[in-house]
Amino acid sequence: METFFSFLEKRIDDCSSLLCVGLDPHIPDLKESSAASALDFCLNLVKQTAPYAAAFKPNAAFFEVFGTEGWGALKQVIDAVHDESNRLGSKIPVILDAKRGDIASTAEAYAKSAFENLGVDCITLSPYLGKDSIEPFIKDKEKGIFLLCKTSNPGSGDLQDLILESGDRIYIYVAKLAQQWNTKNNIGLVVGATHIDAMKHIREVAPDSWFLVPGVGTQGGDLESALKAGLRKDGKGMLINVSRGISRSDNPHKAAVELRDQIVNAQLQMKQ
Amino acid sequence: METFFSFLEKRIDDCSSLLCVGLDPHIPDLKESSAASALDFCLNLVKQTAPYAAAFKPNAAFFEVFGTEGWGALKQVIDAVHDESNRLGSKIPVILDAKRGDIASTAEAYAKSAFENLGVDCITLSPYLGKDSIEPFIKDKEKGIFLLCKTSNPGSGDLQDLILESGDRIYIYVAKLAQQWNTKNNIGLVVGATHIDAMKHIREVAPDSWFLVPGVGTQGGDLESALKAGLRKDGKGMLINVSRGISRSDNPHKAAVELRDQIVNAQLQMKQ
Repeated sequence: METFFSFLEKRIDDCSSLLCVGLDPHIPDLKESSAASALDFCLNLVKQTAPYAAAFKPNAAFFEVFGTEGWGALKQVIDAVHDESNRLGSKIPVILDAKRGDIASTAEAYAKSAFENLGVDCITLSPYLGKDSIEPFIKDKEKGIFLLCKTSNPGSGDLQDLILESGDRIYIYVAKLAQQWNTKNNIGLVVGATHIDAMKHIREVAPDSWFLVPGVGTQGGDLESALKAGLRKDGKGMLINVSRGISRSDNPHKAAVELRDQIVNAQLQMKQ
Repeated sequence: METFFSFLEKRIDDCSSLLCVGLDPHIPDLKESSAASALDFCLNLVKQTAPYAAAFKPNAAFFEVFGTEGWGALKQVIDAVHDESNRLGSKIPVILDAKRGDIASTAEAYAKSAFENLGVDCITLSPYLGKDSIEPFIKDKEKGIFLLCKTSNPGSGDLQDLILESGDRIYIYVAKLAQQWNTKNNIGLVVGATHIDAMKHIREVAPDSWFLVPGVGTQGGDLESALKAGLRKDGKGMLINVSRGISRSDNPHKAAVELRDQIVNAQLQMKQ
């Protein structure tokens, strides 16, 4: 069955990489940026890193902040990934990092915006509103979502770490819910690399799920510890997102190759 | 101290109304709509209902779905509310219903987009990522947020109703957190009119908080039950949002007046 995750696995096989390149154009900082500079920044990143990218993850906020021009730039960046996919003969999925979550009738509009208008393949969503808020995003099995489970930020514990009457932490409960809801193989989880113990625990209860993993690099997450905690038994199941670690390096191309290779080496070591 | 909620109370006094007019331009349905029709629809609603509106609440999704033109339309709708405010000599706050929630550096961009670029006064946010995800939105006390607490949709129970080890349901815990965080009087709660018992309970633990209340009308919530469950002792503390009940009526002006009067009558009855 062709689903979002079968497309992603195909791409991962094609490029031997679990690297997701984050497109967060807030550089050098928001005040000095414009939609045009964000566009240039992202187009350059896409071009330099496409051969090593299992996926691209533009963050909606850094385009939305430039209003109409920003949304135009976002669409152009997504189109540029499609062009690179055609050039390489291997479809690179685009994950819109938007963390949306709204009641069903509103979620329909967000889903249409992301999948039909912008043309992305996957979106990040919040679980707070429950199943009906995610249904419009998962009805087409070729489109996927990553549900926020344990996020990479310091405040993630305020709610996500709370312990339920049943004994589960909220993030564990969300991981279990996501598995119940994942009847079409198109729901993954966002699990931050900054919380290794949480990641291990989530992997225990969700042995087959795909994780989108932010937090490596600038946010303090360690790549090897994360891979050790989160890889599935088949050596896959994780998409390691790096944004600033690539985009702010002097040579994004070199940074992407090095990260790809670090991931591959860690995968190989774990197989031994 | 002038804060978002003192501005809101001033407006409520000026117009004798707790009515928030929702601007959800998905009418007749998304397929037949365009950014231009969404704009016309909203401009007409703003003009017809402004004298009776304590606030306007445009929903970001129904503009975002039209891409660049949609964002342009959203900005024009917000500007139209500002124009009506000037004409009436009474500032009508605009609440962007966006339900955003992201790590701090990203939240900064969303806050800039909403408050500086679009020029709204308040935004709805998800609590799932914790305190650092909301800080960029509350640092200016004249700008406010409504934090999702107990939402109006059927699936809201999937996560929000879970019982914690401490005995609190998650929505009660969120209500308590919001009060801890509300040191500047600019954090309110989203509490759906479709869950009256939950609303009563939230009012017990948050006696002074402002509630933004969706779910009256099309979604099945009863206005009088909601007011009875949620009004503060001073007869305020609730902003009753109505979207389709006004926008889909033959005469939005008349519908807004009637709703305003129903709310006022219920307030008076409760004072007796």
